[in-house]
Amino acid sequence: MQLTLYTDYSLRVLMYLGLHADKKATISEIAGFYGISRNHLVKVVHDLASHGYINTHRGKGGGMFLARPAGEINIGEVVRHAEPNFHMVECFNPQATHCPIFAMCTLKGVLNNALSEFFTVLDKYTLEDLLKRSGGVALPQFMGVSIARER
Amino acid sequence: MQLTLYTDYSLRVLMYLGLHADKKATISEIAGFYGISRNHLVKVVHDLASHGYINTHRGKGGGMFLARPAGEINIGEVVRHAEPNFHMVECFNPQATHCPIFAMCTLKGVLNNALSEFFTVLDKYTLEDLLKRSGGVALPQFMGVSIARER
Repeated sequence: MQLTLYTDYSLRVLMYLGLHADKKATISEIAGFYGISRNHLVKVVHDLASHGYINTHRGKGGGMFLARPAGEINIGEVVRHAEPNFHMVECFNPQATHCPIFAMCTLKGVLNNALSEFFTVLDKYTLEDLLKRSGGVALPQFMGVSIARER
Repeated sequence: MQLTLYTDYSLRVLMYLGLHADKKATISEIAGFYGISRNHLVKVVHDLASHGYINTHRGKGGGMFLARPAGEINIGEVVRHAEPNFHMVECFNPQATHCPIFAMCTLKGVLNNALSEFFTVLDKYTLEDLLKRSGGVALPQFMGVSIARER
């Protein structure tokens, strides 16, 4: 289970801009900073602008900057915008072949509940929190819990 | 954000076996039931057996069946076993290029918290719950919440 690279890069662009709020930044500058492809960032930046997270100015002296204070950019919303879908399993997709146990199986509901809790956490954080709270967030060993149980 | 097709099929095999607990089932039978490729199920079934979820008997009259009561198969554990990784973003992967803001960024911690809550929900359910609770699980509109907020 992963977020797409697209979402990863969307968050990184916002974090870079949050860390450099005193100036405009260019795509090349951000790509160089993270050591990632400039081409990958072009659509990311376009979509962040179209969703109102950043403003971009073209031409000499142009660049991008946050369109709102970092404290008003919700991480859950950014992830919802950036991910292409949340089809946890095939039956989440209305275009998918109809599963013969769809009517009696409650897996979709269970996974929807789990996703809802996932977003309940993300919705608590803003871009400002991500940049300010270094060391302030616990790292639960959710995989470790499983391993301990199995032994 | 999706679970892999491999996890989807792992859950479907277990659900099929839970629904047909009175007999042994074959890979071809399960593949035919769901309308999916038999080849895709071979490794799924092998791994379910190696994790102790199912027993398989070869030869004439052979087949597979649940190795434990459905009430003792935890959905969170099945998902942890089946997913290749939970690298939500690049910095979850120890082999990935080191992100220059890793030390001060708390995105990893926030996503770990969110994943932990995701599994807290899944860990509450067993295979038996999935098969018995038809209609009993609420379907929170987690995407709808976001849309409502944005308007």
